[in-house]
Amino acid sequence: MNADTPNHTSKDKSYAFEDFLPGKTFRLGPYQVNAQEIIDFAQEFDPQRMHLDEAAGKASLLGGLAASGWHICSIMMRMIFDGYLSDSTSQGAPSVDFVEWKRPVLAGDVLHGTSTVLTARALNSRPGIGLVKLRQELFNQREELVTASENLCFLGMRVKAKQI
Amino acid sequence: MNADTPNHTSKDKSYAFEDFLPGKTFRLGPYQVNAQEIIDFAQEFDPQRMHLDEAAGKASLLGGLAASGWHICSIMMRMIFDGYLSDSTSQGAPSVDFVEWKRPVLAGDVLHGTSTVLTARALNSRPGIGLVKLRQELFNQREELVTASENLCFLGMRVKAKQI
Repeated sequence: MNADTPNHTSKDKSYAFEDFLPGKTFRLGPYQVNAQEIIDFAQEFDPQRMHLDEAAGKASLLGGLAASGWHICSIMMRMIFDGYLSDSTSQGAPSVDFVEWKRPVLAGDVLHGTSTVLTARALNSRPGIGLVKLRQELFNQREELVTASENLCFLGMRVKAKQI
Repeated sequence: MNADTPNHTSKDKSYAFEDFLPGKTFRLGPYQVNAQEIIDFAQEFDPQRMHLDEAAGKASLLGGLAASGWHICSIMMRMIFDGYLSDSTSQGAPSVDFVEWKRPVLAGDVLHGTSTVLTARALNSRPGIGLVKLRQELFNQREELVTASENLCFLGMRVKAKQI
């Protein structure tokens, strides 16, 4: 890439690295989780019985037909994509700092939440790209926190800093 | 539950809490990742273009049609289930300590790896249940580390300790 040329992915996007200011919050959801998608995901990736069967879920620590933790993360990803990432210069993510599955997500639950910018810095190693740390919190319809997580994300800059 | 009764979930299982000794390693995989499943997962949960389209993937930091990070985690979950969790007293997981997506997983890659017990302790708050910390490492067919992660998992005990 030429140092004077804006990142090509930023032309039609509302959110580039420059817009991810620490403290900025994006709203996520709502997203209703139904029984069939819990079962479909579990059959493919996590066929533990509490994720496949209502009675087994009720007999488990989870207390009902409960989404796999990785399904919750995947739903969170979709909520982030629909919330702002689809309209951003995202270049993918290198790592997750943590995920806390604080309460079960049961069939019929409706999730909503937030994605908040914690830190942002330009990368010396990759001119035109910045690294942003985001915190996500998802709540259910009773406003109980069900999942908290933090991760890093690469974002293209709208206008590349001049090389000096 | 009666304190003298073995946990009912452990009757037919090879691996209960007592078998998760720190240092023990389970082998995971092999698991071949194909283009269609990368696209199917992305369409549902993470429709960023580098996860949907070979040309877009090649133009991105990822260098090819690359699985979503959450897809890699979901595949890892399936490898853990098939490797040992299906034959265990697993009661689910409360949290992930971290996930590092160190290299892209591209269409055609074949993953294998390990799941290693780091720590194990009985829970005072839930007699008959223990908490285990596990570390997973997944490698591709070139023996490059693609993903490392650590998480906690609840496991039922084979024989509940007597209450004293």
